[in-house]
Amino acid sequence: MPAREQAHALSDLAARFGLELRGDGTTAITGVGTLGGAGPGQLSFLANPKYRRELADTAAAAVVLAEADAAHCPVPCLVARDPYSAFARIAALFETRPEAPAGIHASAVVAADADVAADAHVGPHASIGARSRIGAGAVIGPGCVIGEDCEVGPGCVLVARVTLVARVRLGARVRIHPGAVLGADGFGLAMQEGRWIKVPQLGGVVVGDDCEIGANTTIDRGAIEDTVLEEDVRLDNQVQVGHNVRIGAHTAMAGCVAVAGSARIGRYCLIGGAAGIAGHLEICDRVTITAMSFVTASIDTPGEYSSGMPVQDARVWRRNAARFRQLDLLARKIGGRTKD
Amino acid sequence: MPAREQAHALSDLAARFGLELRGDGTTAITGVGTLGGAGPGQLSFLANPKYRRELADTAAAAVVLAEADAAHCPVPCLVARDPYSAFARIAALFETRPEAPAGIHASAVVAADADVAADAHVGPHASIGARSRIGAGAVIGPGCVIGEDCEVGPGCVLVARVTLVARVRLGARVRIHPGAVLGADGFGLAMQEGRWIKVPQLGGVVVGDDCEIGANTTIDRGAIEDTVLEEDVRLDNQVQVGHNVRIGAHTAMAGCVAVAGSARIGRYCLIGGAAGIAGHLEICDRVTITAMSFVTASIDTPGEYSSGMPVQDARVWRRNAARFRQLDLLARKIGGRTKD
Amino acid sequence: MPAREQAHALSDLAARFGLELRGDGTTAITGVGTLGGAGPGQLSFLANPKYRRELADTAAAAVVLAEADAAHCPVPCLVARDPYSAFARIAALFETRPEAPAGIHASAVVAADADVAADAHVGPHASIGARSRIGAGAVIGPGCVIGEDCEVGPGCVLVARVTLVARVRLGARVRIHPGAVLGADGFGLAMQEGRWIKVPQLGGVVVGDDCEIGANTTIDRGAIEDTVLEEDVRLDNQVQVGHNVRIGAHTAMAGCVAVAGSARIGRYCLIGGAAGIAGHLEICDRVTITAMSFVTASIDTPGEYSSGMPVQDARVWRRNAARFRQLDLLARKIGGRTKD
Repeated sequence: MPAREQAHALSDLAARFGLELRGDGTTAITGVGTLGGAGPGQLSFLANPKYRRELADTAAAAVVLAEADAAHCPVPCLVARDPYSAFARIAALFETRPEAPAGIHASAVVAADADVAADAHVGPHASIGARSRIGAGAVIGPGCVIGEDCEVGPGCVLVARVTLVARVRLGARVRIHPGAVLGADGFGLAMQEGRWIKVPQLGGVVVGDDCEIGANTTIDRGAIEDTVLEEDVRLDNQVQVGHNVRIGAHTAMAGCVAVAGSARIGRYCLIGGAAGIAGHLEICDRVTITAMSFVTASIDTPGEYSSGMPVQDARVWRRNAARFRQLDLLARKIGGRTKD
Repeated sequence: MPAREQAHALSDLAARFGLELRGDGTTAITGVGTLGGAGPGQLSFLANPKYRRELADTAAAAVVLAEADAAHCPVPCLVARDPYSAFARIAALFETRPEAPAGIHASAVVAADADVAADAHVGPHASIGARSRIGAGAVIGPGCVIGEDCEVGPGCVLVARVTLVARVRLGARVRIHPGAVLGADGFGLAMQEGRWIKVPQLGGVVVGDDCEIGANTTIDRGAIEDTVLEEDVRLDNQVQVGHNVRIGAHTAMAGCVAVAGSARIGRYCLIGGAAGIAGHLEICDRVTITAMSFVTASIDTPGEYSSGMPVQDARVWRRNAARFRQLDLLARKIGGRTKD
Repeated sequence: MPAREQAHALSDLAARFGLELRGDGTTAITGVGTLGGAGPGQLSFLANPKYRRELADTAAAAVVLAEADAAHCPVPCLVARDPYSAFARIAALFETRPEAPAGIHASAVVAADADVAADAHVGPHASIGARSRIGAGAVIGPGCVIGEDCEVGPGCVLVARVTLVARVRLGARVRIHPGAVLGADGFGLAMQEGRWIKVPQLGGVVVGDDCEIGANTTIDRGAIEDTVLEEDVRLDNQVQVGHNVRIGAHTAMAGCVAVAGSARIGRYCLIGGAAGIAGHLEICDRVTITAMSFVTASIDTPGEYSSGMPVQDARVWRRNAARFRQLDLLARKIGGRTKD
């Protein structure tokens, strides 16, 4: 990691981020670390109670923590109402940003009628198709392919090898990680006389401001209308979003979630890893789906929903699974009734 | 979206696609839309009964629909036996195809002994390896990597950033979406004295005519013989196909399906999203596997099979899952018997 | 496939790999094949007992097999304690390696302060970022993107279109398949006043010697410390590894496994396809997780664990799943007790 020679006095950090300082404000902070791993000059944080026992022995220079933990902190600290988000903002000071000078790399290929802002960066081996526009300060990393009729808003970062196939419109400050593919054909097929015929996918993809899209995630373009992510949607890696889906603002999905076509998902939802969401259904705002669960019908009540089955010893599991296969018979035998 | 200035008289569409016209045949059609979203000049369709209630209020210029719905249509209509496939064929008239002029882009790298048809398109930053052949009219989009000893049949479209690693043979008119990887090493390992040794993957991948392969889908090459997709197989995004798998003609798989090595899947199968298929088994023709189900053994009877468990309220789920862990004990207590 | 004109006398193979020869040692071996598919000149093997019935009719020139099967072999054979690993080593003789001459392709873009070994290969349209180092004999295939501050050890092979985002350090002889993304931002988010803020991801990824990483697999870099794969870890395609995960030496994961952040997985574990592993837990050495299972809590006892539910006829399944939704009520009715 390149040295970033900078030091911040703890008192300066307290002032800048609106936190309460306890202890020596002249403490110099030159980086961050975990409670267990931090050394001299490093700022750590305590947010998850399960790490509280590591506080007493920390070698960190200082710690961001909640009021209740401050008394037990052996080093100077910054007291925050929400230590995790306070730490996140401070840590950003120590983030390394890859070089991305304004201008178009000599190896990049840009269509004659594409429009690239003067201060945007277009990296090596990137290509930009007809009628596409790249906004002010945007970064198009190495190997990205921007197809035709796309818009990349101001301040967007396409890290590397991102593909926007066609008719993809990104708002401001959207961040997309390598291998992601937006705007590929949706999976539309009709069977005719024993063969599939392809249903044309004429829509696009619209991504709101401040969204983040993970590595190797795929978001298909709509069949007729657009696939839509509202603002501040956060998708982890390897998420699949089918055509015509709509995802509400501030919703987050962990890795490997699969969302089938035309599902509508509300705002402030949290979808756990590898969960599946069937198509043509609606999930209201503020729904949490736990990991590896399967949503097959609309949900109209906020709350937490599950169907991921935890492992057990394989021999026991096999016996239980065998019983499951006759659960209805078993239930009938004892007079149970299905009324769900 | 670029303007495609074209209009088709409704009567012309009826004649061209063999549909029955009802109402004003001079109606000009300039595009398509959904029943709820279509406006002037747009053709819509009604195939799924759940949208029937939107017919009365549609602002579409005309609608493709079934005989039974024609009487309720407030605008001119085209009557089809199968409205969805009729609409698909008409909508293709309004599809925009990206520019792909014949010839090899100056930035592409083509091996001296590769063979590219004169009317094929090889886009920016594509590379084509030794002894590979690109057929007539094929499109190799930007950033594609074609390795050694591959064949791309006539009329194939590799949209962008597709990789054919080695010994991949595509039939005619195969369409592959960005990020797909065909012909990577299968996952062959042998444990020897506490370390893995790699089993060489000497086979290839054979893909039949008219197949379509989704974004970020992976299809490994065979260990000794080939991994095979017969004609007209349709794979959605993020599907994983292990080495030596064989998939029968006209089978379709939705997103995120995982197929383990050496599975043999029949013709006209439908595999729902995120389903898993274990290795070394056989599935007969015309089997439907619903989403998020797990096939662990061969299936020799056509029909529909499931094991995806729907979500419920998380607290209730946890109680039920805890009971499941002792289902066999419970069943014994009431004298149930496993005979599946 | 290019002709590789080479023949090995069976007796030479026996001597070279320490196997016992039975039958005519002058038999010339020019390639390999399956028991059912092999023809003249081809060596086959018998390791899985379910293929034993194919031995009697094999047209292979010779077969690698276990002592117990030798008597039933109709052709010359090589007797091995472990026929599969013996075959793997012999088959490597017939493997075709793609051309990868030493040097940097004219179309590649290498940062001025990057360091590429003289005998390394950097292919077409690859790019290598600031301060990164490529070791002796390493192969950086076409379209790879190596970001800043990365290290690629001696003998590594990045087949094509691999991305190392930043601060990724590979040991010796690591093999990475196309589309894999190492070192993307981990999925770190904090909610503040109704909006997500991004938690900087300041760590890297460390990959030990002899690891193999499948196509379109993603491994995020750590939030503060590193994400770590110890030596000889083998990941199949489309595996997702979250930030701060640690995977022990010699562990193998089949396709589509998802590992959430901060999980610690032991040595010599086998994780079946599409299994999910929750975050912030620990799995001890020598644990097998069967396919499509979900690990929600730490495992401290070696053994096999499952929760993947096999399909059954969809109508029967629906009745059983409906009963499951009230399993706790059912169990209470018959006086069952949860004590797991």
